[in-house]
Amino acid sequence: MSKQYTVAVAGATGAVGVEMLKCLEQRGFPVKHLKLLASKRSIGREMEFAGEKIKIEELTQDSFAGVDIALFSAGASRSREFAASAVAAGAVVIDNSSAFRLDDKVPLVVPEVNPEDVKWHNGIIANPNCTTVLMLVALKPLHDISPIQRIVVSTYQSASGAGAQAMDELVNQTRQYLEGEDLVISILPHQSAFNLFSHNSAIDEASGYCEEELKMVNETRKMLHDPRIRVSATAVRVPVLRAHAEALTFEQVRKVSVEEARQALAKAPGVKLVDDPKANYFPMPLDASDQDEVLVGRLRDDLSSDRGLSLFLCGDQLLKGAALNAVQIAELLIRRG
Amino acid sequence: MSKQYTVAVAGATGAVGVEMLKCLEQRGFPVKHLKLLASKRSIGREMEFAGEKIKIEELTQDSFAGVDIALFSAGASRSREFAASAVAAGAVVIDNSSAFRLDDKVPLVVPEVNPEDVKWHNGIIANPNCTTVLMLVALKPLHDISPIQRIVVSTYQSASGAGAQAMDELVNQTRQYLEGEDLVISILPHQSAFNLFSHNSAIDEASGYCEEELKMVNETRKMLHDPRIRVSATAVRVPVLRAHAEALTFEQVRKVSVEEARQALAKAPGVKLVDDPKANYFPMPLDASDQDEVLVGRLRDDLSSDRGLSLFLCGDQLLKGAALNAVQIAELLIRRG
Repeated sequence: MSKQYTVAVAGATGAVGVEMLKCLEQRGFPVKHLKLLASKRSIGREMEFAGEKIKIEELTQDSFAGVDIALFSAGASRSREFAASAVAAGAVVIDNSSAFRLDDKVPLVVPEVNPEDVKWHNGIIANPNCTTVLMLVALKPLHDISPIQRIVVSTYQSASGAGAQAMDELVNQTRQYLEGEDLVISILPHQSAFNLFSHNSAIDEASGYCEEELKMVNETRKMLHDPRIRVSATAVRVPVLRAHAEALTFEQVRKVSVEEARQALAKAPGVKLVDDPKANYFPMPLDASDQDEVLVGRLRDDLSSDRGLSLFLCGDQLLKGAALNAVQIAELLIRRG
Repeated sequence: MSKQYTVAVAGATGAVGVEMLKCLEQRGFPVKHLKLLASKRSIGREMEFAGEKIKIEELTQDSFAGVDIALFSAGASRSREFAASAVAAGAVVIDNSSAFRLDDKVPLVVPEVNPEDVKWHNGIIANPNCTTVLMLVALKPLHDISPIQRIVVSTYQSASGAGAQAMDELVNQTRQYLEGEDLVISILPHQSAFNLFSHNSAIDEASGYCEEELKMVNETRKMLHDPRIRVSATAVRVPVLRAHAEALTFEQVRKVSVEEARQALAKAPGVKLVDDPKANYFPMPLDASDQDEVLVGRLRDDLSSDRGLSLFLCGDQLLKGAALNAVQIAELLIRRG
């Protein structure tokens, strides 16, 4: 019998944590024992995994004895507080937060993009920001044909990126709107129902970019191992529940034809081409939700550059954008022993 | 007493037609007599204008006797069918459809952008596509500082762009979704509720761009009088009811600083700066709806180009994107005699 692993999920009750459990189960991850860790207020609650009810335990410095793999999705401050204990206890931490993503000693990994980077980990591997994961799954096969030099990206980000409470808020606000009631705005800063707004992360005063946009700049450079890649991002929240979309326009060293790009994307891991101009059928959040693949379409020449292409993509922010990618990193670790 | 005009509105019952009436009334347009024209099925219905009930008449070749200004918003085929009769009867046609926009003999006008072009009309003046109007109101003051050479734009277009029925469909579908009912999809091709999709106009087979995107390319060149301007657009429908948003990244001949651009936009006609990074408050459809101004914010250096800037804008698609611009063209004609 092949080896089995003790896995801990820190932040098990969050929107991403719930999806991590589903991914582990559906993908038949070799789990010997599963520990579900969360904050004090969830203690005693149970969650189901593979037909078994598992009690949630409090996340503490002592939670990780015997743990092989610790999947963290409890926010950056929890990761900073508890990851070292997990590593000290012998676990490999796969961290979904922003805490270690730009740490030179921590690889930032998407298995379809830079699997080789897991080799040099020191106990922690970071999971990139959701928008960057989705973008690079689509761009890596094209980057392999000719290096990408410049990306202009606009995002259409769903409420799920701000957690389960933001999804509830969108549904509740929409109901309130339709019933003519006062709208309750508490999780996201502005009205979500039938509205959209610039991403709610803090704006960097010097550059004018929000954190979400700067993640796309810095994480892209780190994962493609090229600090010269220039990225200009606009991150926007839209009233969609679960999957993110992105409009990309990008330039490569040499002009890659639409046909060449299409062929590369058709066989690329993690990508599903959804590109039917005659039927006007392209990637939609509705179709990307609950799907592992990043849907890619609207592949066309960038009319504004001689070396540019444009495409539109949608991907499930909770799956490939978070939980699935973390579990795939764990699978990659196992395959590499 | 200053001169008054007989005004006809062709397509009076549509989403834009209704707004045209409101604009004429609210702006105190010197209307002597108002003719409301629509298809046969609206005959006998009444609409209110300045406290008066006006009967809707059928739009025919004989509708325009005595009409000074004919505002058309009944679709391109009606414009092609009836505009010549209006001109022959002595009216100036201001046409909101795509029928004549790229006709060399027809000026395409946004009063804040190229008012001088009304001079050379031959009876017809075209009103640009909504996304182009909003984009150029924001870009013209910057183009005046240093010519714009390249634009990459992603749109976030509301249901109103597809008419009143599409707005109703979004509301109805959303209600159906929340109540767990089957969703009725009939006006727009895909589910609107909590979803988004590539703009529903036809895709040009050669280029891969949809009509909406190519309008932004061609109309921008025509209005800025520079066929060398390169535009790459991605047009997307989002589940917002009324105002459009656009993320713009653009390059100019020389690098214009954020501060220089901000000063130009602060005093630009038709523009309202909404740019508060500390409060994370930027243009939103919610704030742009029912407003005459195009809201502009997120003004920042384009991190991917040494001569680039980026901004985010929202504008009421039915007002500045359609009805208001048409009425402003009429006002411009009157001012110029």
